Order: sequence, then C-alpha cells, then structure tokens
Amino acid sequence: MIAVLKNGTPKEKIESLSHYLTEQGVEVRVWEGKFQTVVGLIGDTSKIDDNALLGMDFVETVKHISEPFKSANRKFHPDDSEIRVGDHVVGGGTFTVIAGPCSVENEAQILEVAKAVKASGASFLRGGAFKPLTSPYDFQGLKADGIELLLEAKKETGLPIVTEIMNANHLPLFEDVDVIQVGARNMQNFELLKELGKTKKPILLKRGLANTLKELLMSAEYIMAGGNENVILCERGIRTFETYTRNTLDLSAVPMLKELSHLPVIVDPSHATGLARLVEPMALAAAAAGADGLMIEVHNDPQKALCDGPQSLTPAQFDQVMKKVNKVRAALQ
Amino acid sequence: MIAVLKNGTPKEKIESLSHYLTEQGVEVRVWEGKFQTVVGLIGDTSKIDDNALLGMDFVETVKHISEPFKSANRKFHPDDSEIRVGDHVVGGGTFTVIAGPCSVENEAQILEVAKAVKASGASFLRGGAFKPLTSPYDFQGLKADGIELLLEAKKETGLPIVTEIMNANHLPLFEDVDVIQVGARNMQNFELLKELGKTKKPILLKRGLANTLKELLMSAEYIMAGGNENVILCERGIRTFETYTRNTLDLSAVPMLKELSHLPVIVDPSHATGLARLVEPMALAAAAAGADGLMIEVHNDPQKALCDGPQSLTPAQFDQVMKKVNKVRAALQ
Amino acid sequence: MIAVLKNGTPKEKIESLSHYLTEQGVEVRVWEGKFQTVVGLIGDTSKIDDNALLGMDFVETVKHISEPFKSANRKFHPDDSEIRVGDHVVGGGTFTVIAGPCSVENEAQILEVAKAVKASGASFLRGGAFKPLTSPYDFQGLKADGIELLLEAKKETGLPIVTEIMNANHLPLFEDVDVIQVGARNMQNFELLKELGKTKKPILLKRGLANTLKELLMSAEYIMAGGNENVILCERGIRTFETYTRNTLDLSAVPMLKELSHLPVIVDPSHATGLARLVEPMALAAAAAGADGLMIEVHNDPQKALCDGPQSLTPAQFDQVMKKVNKVRAALQ
Amino acid sequence: MIAVLKNGTPKEKIESLSHYLTEQGVEVRVWEGKFQTVVGLIGDTSKIDDNALLGMDFVETVKHISEPFKSANRKFHPDDSEIRVGDHVVGGGTFTVIAGPCSVENEAQILEVAKAVKASGASFLRGGAFKPLTSPYDFQGLKADGIELLLEAKKETGLPIVTEIMNANHLPLFEDVDVIQVGARNMQNFELLKELGKTKKPILLKRGLANTLKELLMSAEYIMAGGNENVILCERGIRTFETYTRNTLDLSAVPMLKELSHLPVIVDPSHATGLARLVEPMALAAAAAGADGLMIEVHNDPQKALCDGPQSLTPAQFDQVMKKVNKVRAALQ
Repeated sequence: MIAVLKNGTPKEKIESLSHYLTEQGVEVRVWEGKFQTVVGLIGDTSKIDDNALLGMDFVETVKHISEPFKSANRKFHPDDSEIRVGDHVVGGGTFTVIAGPCSVENEAQILEVAKAVKASGASFLRGGAFKPLTSPYDFQGLKADGIELLLEAKKETGLPIVTEIMNANHLPLFEDVDVIQVGARNMQNFELLKELGKTKKPILLKRGLANTLKELLMSAEYIMAGGNENVILCERGIRTFETYTRNTLDLSAVPMLKELSHLPVIVDPSHATGLARLVEPMALAAAAAGADGLMIEVHNDPQKALCDGPQSLTPAQFDQVMKKVNKVRAALQ
Repeated sequence: MIAVLKNGTPKEKIESLSHYLTEQGVEVRVWEGKFQTVVGLIGDTSKIDDNALLGMDFVETVKHISEPFKSANRKFHPDDSEIRVGDHVVGGGTFTVIAGPCSVENEAQILEVAKAVKASGASFLRGGAFKPLTSPYDFQGLKADGIELLLEAKKETGLPIVTEIMNANHLPLFEDVDVIQVGARNMQNFELLKELGKTKKPILLKRGLANTLKELLMSAEYIMAGGNENVILCERGIRTFETYTRNTLDLSAVPMLKELSHLPVIVDPSHATGLARLVEPMALAAAAAGADGLMIEVHNDPQKALCDGPQSLTPAQFDQVMKKVNKVRAALQ
Repeated sequence: MIAVLKNGTPKEKIESLSHYLTEQGVEVRVWEGKFQTVVGLIGDTSKIDDNALLGMDFVETVKHISEPFKSANRKFHPDDSEIRVGDHVVGGGTFTVIAGPCSVENEAQILEVAKAVKASGASFLRGGAFKPLTSPYDFQGLKADGIELLLEAKKETGLPIVTEIMNANHLPLFEDVDVIQVGARNMQNFELLKELGKTKKPILLKRGLANTLKELLMSAEYIMAGGNENVILCERGIRTFETYTRNTLDLSAVPMLKELSHLPVIVDPSHATGLARLVEPMALAAAAAGADGLMIEVHNDPQKALCDGPQSLTPAQFDQVMKKVNKVRAALQ
Repeated sequence: MIAVLKNGTPKEKIESLSHYLTEQGVEVRVWEGKFQTVVGLIGDTSKIDDNALLGMDFVETVKHISEPFKSANRKFHPDDSEIRVGDHVVGGGTFTVIAGPCSVENEAQILEVAKAVKASGASFLRGGAFKPLTSPYDFQGLKADGIELLLEAKKETGLPIVTEIMNANHLPLFEDVDVIQVGARNMQNFELLKELGKTKKPILLKRGLANTLKELLMSAEYIMAGGNENVILCERGIRTFETYTRNTLDLSAVPMLKELSHLPVIVDPSHATGLARLVEPMALAAAAAGADGLMIEVHNDPQKALCDGPQSLTPAQFDQVMKKVNKVRAALQ
C-alpha cells in the first residue's frame, strides 16, 4: 500500500504521517523523488483506512500494490534507482560494464586482465574467489587469497571489484569488496539474502536457472526488506530445452524488470550462452534492449582458464565488443 | 558427407562425379558457391570410400557431417542463402520487415494497415486467414476470403504477402501468396512439410513452442529434402516458466542458427512477448543480434482486434520502431 | 453453460427446451446420465438468461463452466465415458492394455507379437504404419502395407488394432482400423483433429511433448465439437530438463484428467521413459494411480527393431508386467 | 575409478593397497559388501596405472566411472544403503513413512498430529520450524521454539523427527533432531551441504525445482565427500509448464535413482501436487514404482493451517492412504 503525497508537502507533515502509520503497526518507508513523495507501507496494512489517509489534505492518492514485492516495486519508487559505488553510479541512464575472469587464478593473470579491461572501458573488475561448482571434486576457487589478489588489482587500476559470496560467515572477508555477487544457485538462499540485507554493500543478484522474474524480485525484496536497497539485478540466462547454448538469455527480462522495478538490470551474455562467439551479438542485443550494463568474462588465455574457458573473451575480443556496444548505445540516444 | 571440389573444376568432371555417386545409391546435390563447389551426399553414405574420392585430382577435401540436417547445414553451403520474392531478396545481408495484423478482418482494415506499414518501410504484408487457435470455439479466420483481401491489398500497395497454411489441401488457395507461413504448432506436422517441399514457394517456418534449434532445422530439412530450398526460419519465442511475458524470445537462436545453417533467420517479437510495449526493445535487440529481418503485428485499432490485440502496434508505434531499428542497423554497418 | 434437469423430466419438455435454446443461437447437447439429465449449451451463451431457465419447473440448476473445454468437461457429463470397440469397452472401470511394436516391419514379426501379447492378456494390438520421425532420412514406416499386415494380425488373433494417422487424406486407409491414434507432435494439428471429429472412430489422443492438460483437453474438444465423442486420452511423458529418461512421465495427469474430464485416460510408459527397464515400475505406478489402461511397446527382437528398440519389452518381459499389474489392480479393488 | 577385489582378500592386503594409493595423492574409500570388496579412488586418478593395480593378485577388475558422482554411485557400492535412525532403518527393502504438518504451529497441534500419524503407522514425524518461503513478508516458522515442540512430540510418541535446516549456523539447534532435511531451494547451497557433510546426521536431500537427477546426486556427493554417507534422496516434484498441479511428480526418478545410486529414495506427493486429493493416487503410484518411503503432509485442521493447507491430509485421510499403500506393497512382494 502506498500513499502519494502532494508536491511540496512540508517535512513535518510527512514525519507526523510516518509516526501515525508506525503506531498502527506497519513499517513505513518514505521515498522523496524528483516530482513527488511516496510513502510506502509494509506489513499488515489491513487496518489502515484509505479514507483516513485521503482525508489528509497533503495526500494525493492511495494505491494498493498487488505485486508481492514492495520495496523493489516501481509503483512505490517511480524513478530509476541509482546505486553509487565510489565515483561510479549504476542505473539511472548510465551503462556499467563489469569484466574479468571467471576465477582469479594468480597475480599475473588478474593484473593483466584488469589493465586490459580498464583500457577498453570497463567500469568494474570481476573475478571469482569462491566458486559454486556442481561437483565437490572441481576447483573451488582461491577463496580469501583470491579476494586479496582482486584488491591488489583494484589498487593497481582503480577499478572497483565484484565477487561472489556463498556463505554469510565469509562476510568479514568481503569488507573491501565493492559489489557482492549472489550467484544463480543461491538466488533463493534466503538466509544469505537476509544477512546481506543487514549490510549496506551493493548486491549484484543473479536470476536463478529456472526462476521467474517475480521470484527474482522477491529475492531482491529479501535483501531490501532488511534495509539494504542497493540491489542490482542480473539476467544470466535460464534453463530451457535448447542444448546448442548453455542457457537461454531472456532479454525480454530487461524491459520487463525495468517496468516492474526501479532497480538497475545488467546482462551477463557469457554465462547465458556459454560460447565466446555468441557474447558479442548478445551483448549488442542487451544494449539495444535497454540494459543498464553488461557483465562479461574476459581471460588473458581462455584456452588455459581453470573454469569456463570456452565462454571467455580475449582482451582483444572484449575491446571489439566494447566499441560496437558504444555504437549501438550512441545510435539510440 | 560432402566433397569440396577444387576451384575451377570443369563441369564435366562434376557431372561424372555425380553420376558415379548416384550409382552408389546416394542422392547427390551440387552447390556452386562463389569460391568453391560443394557436392553433398544424402542417404546411406557408408559404402562410399573417402579415399576413392580423395584420389580424384579435383577433390580438395571430404567431410563427414554429423549434424542430422544436411540441406540446411552451413558446412554444406557456406554462403548465406538468398531467397528471392519478386524484387525482394530475403537473407544475404538484406533486412526484411514483415508487418500486418494477426487476422485479416475486412477490406478497410487490411488496406489501411498495408498502406501504413509500406509507408514506414515494411517489405511484406502479413495477415492471418486461417488461424490455428487452441479453442474450437474461437474465431478461426476468414479463410479463402481472407486470402482474397490480402491479394487486394497487394494489388493496391505492391507489397508481397505472407500468410499461414494449416492444411496441405488448401494449397490451391495459396497460389498467389508470396510466402507461405508454417506456424509454431505445425512445425512438426511432417506431412504438411513434405507437401510444401514439393512446391517452389518460399516458406516461413516458425520454431515450435518447446522445440530445439536442431528440431527446427530438421523440420526445414523435411521441406528441403523434397526439393524446395526456399526456407526462412523464424524465432518467435519459446515456452518457459516465465509468466509476465507470453513466451521467452530466444535471441541467441539468431547467431546460433546462422552459424549452423545458411538459411535466413527472422524474429517475431510480437508473439514472443505478447505485449505491444515490449516489441520495440525486442525488435532493436533482434536487429543488434544480427537477424535478417522482423515480423511485427500492426493493427489500425489494436483495442478492437479480433485476436492478439494486446501485442499489436499501432501504425504510429510501428513507424517509430522502424526508425530506431534503422539506426541500430546503420550503427553496426 | 449447463442446465441440470430434475429427475424424471419428460422427453417432450427436454425437446422443447432444446428447441428454444437452439433458436437463441446456441448449440445444444443433451446427455442423459444414470441419475440426471444435463443440457449443455455451446457457443455464445451471453444472451441466455439464467433466470428464464431457472423459471422452468423441470430445471434444477444452471451452472457456468469457466473451463474452455465443454464437451470433455466432467461437470457437463458426470459419469465416466465408456468407449465401445467391438466387444471391448475402454473406460468406466475397465482396464485396457494396448501392446505391440513401434513399427510394423513384416508379417512374421507382427503375427508373432500379436499372438504373444494376446496370450498375456492385451486387449488391443498396436503397431506403427505411418511414422512421424524427426528426420526425413529415417524409416517412415510401411504405410498402407503396414495397415494391411495389422489387419491380417487382427484376423488371426481377433485383437482390435490401434495405429497412428498423420494426414487426414489417409483416412480411407483407416476404414478397418479400430482405434486411430493421434501422435504427440500432431496434438495441435487442428485441421487433422477437425477431420477426425467428422468420423465416428475412437481416437487415441496423445499429449504433446510440452503441452498442458488444458491444451490436451482443448484438442479433445476439437474432435468432440465435430460430433465424435469417442476420445481416449493418453499421457506419454513430457519434455523436462531430465536427460537420464527420454521424457518425464506425468502420472498426476491421470487423477487430474479424470477429475476434469469424463474421458478415459491411458498411460504409455514406453515412450515416456525410453528405457525398457523402466517400463515395469512405471506401468505398475500408472495402474496404482488409477489409469484406465496402458500402451506398451513389445517387440519379438528389440535388438533388431527398426525403431525404438531400447524401449521395447520382449514378450516374456511383457507377460511379467501384466502379471504384476493385475496384482496391483486386484489389491486396490 | 574403482578396483573390485577378489573374494576373501585379507585385511592387510587391503590396507597396504589403500596406503599405496593414498601416497599417489588420491583419496581412498573401502567398502566391504556382502560378496565383494570395492576400493574407490576419489580425486585426480590420472596418475594411477590400471595395469599396476591389475598386476596385484587380489584385484579382480578395475573400472573407470564416468559419472561425476562417486560416493553415491551404485557401481561403487552395489548393495542398497541402509540408514539407521534409532531402531528404524531407511532403505534396503524397508518402507519409511514420514508424516506431519508443513509448519509446527503449537503444542496441541503437533501432539495431536503426531499421535494420529503414529497410530496409522508412520515411522517419523515431520514438521517445519524454519520455513524457506518466497516472500520475506510470509510466516517464517517458529524456529527454535518449533524444534522444541517437535522434541516434545517425540518424547510423547517415540517418533523420531525430521525438520528442515536453512543455515549451517543453526546446527546446534538440530542436535536432537533425528533427520535433517535440506529443502529444494537449498539443494545447490553447496556451503550448507559441506557443513552437513561434517556431521553424522542422516540428511533428507530434496531435489531442486528444476534440477536433474545428476545434479541431485552431485549434491548428495557434496555431503558424502565430507564423510557423511547417511543421505536419503527425496523426489518432490519438478517445475513444468503444467498449472493444474503445483509441480509435476517425476516417478521415473525412483527406479532411475535406485539404478544409479545405492541411496534410499523417498517420494513427497504433497509438495509435488499441491492438492490433497491427489496425494492418495500419487502415494500409491510411488509405492508401486518401488520407492523406499513417503513423506506426507498431515494437519489436524487443514483449513486453518498456516501454510500449505490445500495439500495437507486430515489424519483420517492419511489413515486411508496408509491402508491402501500397504495393500499395494503386499501385492508386489
């Protein structure tokens, strides 16, 4: 349930409304947008009387939100969210490119890739330190050492870093990480989401392999309901019957999520297709569809990558993709 | 199994090779490309000795094709197919836009839409005369009268027409239709495909709702094995668990199909999403992904359309999409 | 929309009601059950006034049926349908076992299998004469000759025969076939369904690979709306992400379909699993779930079968399955 | 890679072989079955020479296991696993029925249900204390208090208890829980699985909503690789396009999993169908398909259940199901 306030409603009135509503037992969120102020009511709103609210002279309208996600809902927050990470802003018309290897392997590798992707225009460096692999016998990542190497690459290049968390107990290791990624297999690990909701870190939340957009938004809601509104959504392909590609990239998710929610939406064409040669056309398509950014795997030597080599671009290929993506974005401005 | 011949192999040698292979009990197809001649062997090739072929001084290489589709296979036909329809060519670097209403309803409607989409740059007029609806109690189309109305619109505007067939017995009604569409639900109606293989009409073959790309190519193969190589593939969304959109548009199908096959690939964002407001971003994405064209539903009065109103664009919206699609294509040239 | 009439309503009143409703422009079906008479209204019922009907002293209740299938709906026809084929009845508490090879190959094969499955208690002989295979280069069946061989086996053993149709133009060849099968890939070949609706032949309608139960019932509706109410539904496995089995047998379809519809439901564990060794447990499970019968592939020499060998039982294995199925059925009576 | 040893190989030889293999850098597991001893090698076996092993006079054969799961593989452990919980054994020919409410709500409720299901023959009491719900605004369970109430019901009835864990940090609360359940959404929460692998508690591992059997076995492998071999697999329905039922119960998973693995397999027809009236036919089908047990939701007042009411049986309905399940099992013995 939300109440849209009239333009220019004074602060005291908003505070007194919040106070009143809190006393009725609901949680209150106030969002001051450029053109209007919206007050969101979370919890059991059944006792709140619409007419009582409409009777207040500064309340314009009252709307009931049927979608089960509230904090993530665009009705509740009409403007795009802008998530600040250092000097960079994700969302709100910017375009964010996150690039780097599937796994951090060693210092030389991560530094070489970091410098290369920065030169081509990436805004963030990604690299896996904890790896959620299907088999317990596969390489599980360098863990804490991987995060150390990412931080070194950050010091060297200035690129903020993005890396995946699998266990809330590891949070202390992520203190200097700029954006924490939640992988597809943990999209409904609600205990992890709740812990991340208690932090203020930007969270990159990947859609699960067979999850709907509503479920993705409900998982964002778990983080936001805890007080952390810095959520970036990521479409990374869903499971279908197709076998030529690893997954099926759902690009209609981009405009659909942006209609339903104010959160930024980025696209990962590398995991979605599993094939380096499909990354370029899908990156261009994502840009044309209105994505707020891309997440692309780049490796200095894909043949020898410890994981996901076949889907990694070389730095030269990545540079090529960036040039074309910029052309598409320029054409649509 | 294919034999690639050396550049400049004289015609008689090719003919004598064909004759020899036919006598071994296999069917032979000769394709003369710009840079090389390829001889394809269809059927039981187990008795053909690779070395016997390689021993011929004009044979460069012999390749075994493991994919079960042969006529549609790019290995067998390295250049893009170009399918001529009147003065228009589909494939080979051109961009084909097919637009029109889901169903032909009456003369005024189809003429108005035809003129509008032509003015915005469409190359073909589409309109359903026979409708494959899930319920026997829903509107089943104007049938023969619908085709008459399409032909009138063609006479008036010069636009070649595309319409769907559901029954091979109706073929005589399609004599003046320029491109015959096979709908998603008939993609594996093998008897229909075989009959279409006996014609020379260009066929627009839509991917089935839960079919893989390999199955789509095998269905193209049914048509081509009958001798009709004029097949245009169409990605129109597949069934997934997502419910906000009607289907999920699989844009990775575009580069993947173009890698596997020489046939042109067009994209239908209207049926894929089921939502008019998603047609523009998906059309732009399809163009960026390298599609050979688009198929878009346009209706002069979507509110009153007898079918699929919610996914139809108005002529003004279609004009807008065309302008942006052209910008994206220009940017990538 | 249906009207339930009071017990003992005289024939003339029913006729006069039918006449009245037909004049209002709807189609009328009268079904006289054991305990009540139900009048079904098909078509645009928006102009029929509930109160006008309720005002007639012999009308007990009027119900609106929201499910889009009407003829197949159990609300409209509360008792189980019983479909007569010679002396055999399918549905209504009987158990029907249809057995035989995937393809009819030659006289010796079909006769040997027919005698064997009859001895083990099968009630029908199945065998493919027209085969809907994904590849145009695979064995397409013996066609008319296959049907001839089935008829010979019928003469020899007395078993009625079931075989698949792919093209309505072949109907004359099916004159002596007892039950006509529509395969999964043709479940939404609406033109074929409409033609079968004009016959009186019992139709075995298989669920499509990725179709819902509602779609299956709507396809049954296409046949029934044409006047042929002799439809037998067949669950044969649906496409899922699982790869160890060919498809995933959906046994909850059995009680669900029987709740929604009065039509008999049989289960094909052979195509559903693709593995002979899973046929027995799935046949037992289908019987326990309340299926009205089974369709099982049996081949005298599965190793050499021209199609689907890996999923065919030997006659000895089939005999074993029959014995256990009978035990399960006896235990639940 | 496994080595099968000759019957009667003396203990010292087995130990010396283990020692030798451990020195080559692989992990060794010895499993002594009734008729043969199998030595399993886990890790990088590329340096182990088959011939060196075959040269030892007590080694019968050496097999390479291509399936990525090893501890769970039946080749490696030909007999059924038997998992002891108090006096009860799960697997190995027994039949285990776990029954109880979706959520523990209060003392009266859990005691009443526990007594009822015990009287009908259930071997375990289930009840949710921590609930993994899609929405952060829904009832999340009584948590620690819920476990307390389960333990009280256990004291009263003697029934061992099964309840779900969502966070490894909660493990101390589960000290007296007999079987720990991992829910479908956590099937690939590898960090949780690893922690459970360090305990000796029997784990009931549910298949994820869109996961394959191989993925389920790989998740079992995560637990077993840590040293905890007490894993019970649970089929609980997978996501398909069908909407009449909540999920689609995959009963072919039962014989398939039992062929691939030695672990017991139980079936949850309540979550699979979401409809109380489908629980009986699916429970009977599961028993007929060879399941090692059932997990069924029972509530004393389904209308008022805090979660999943529509799929819960009343105690009387459960009693009915148990009687019929016993008949089916007796018929097949």
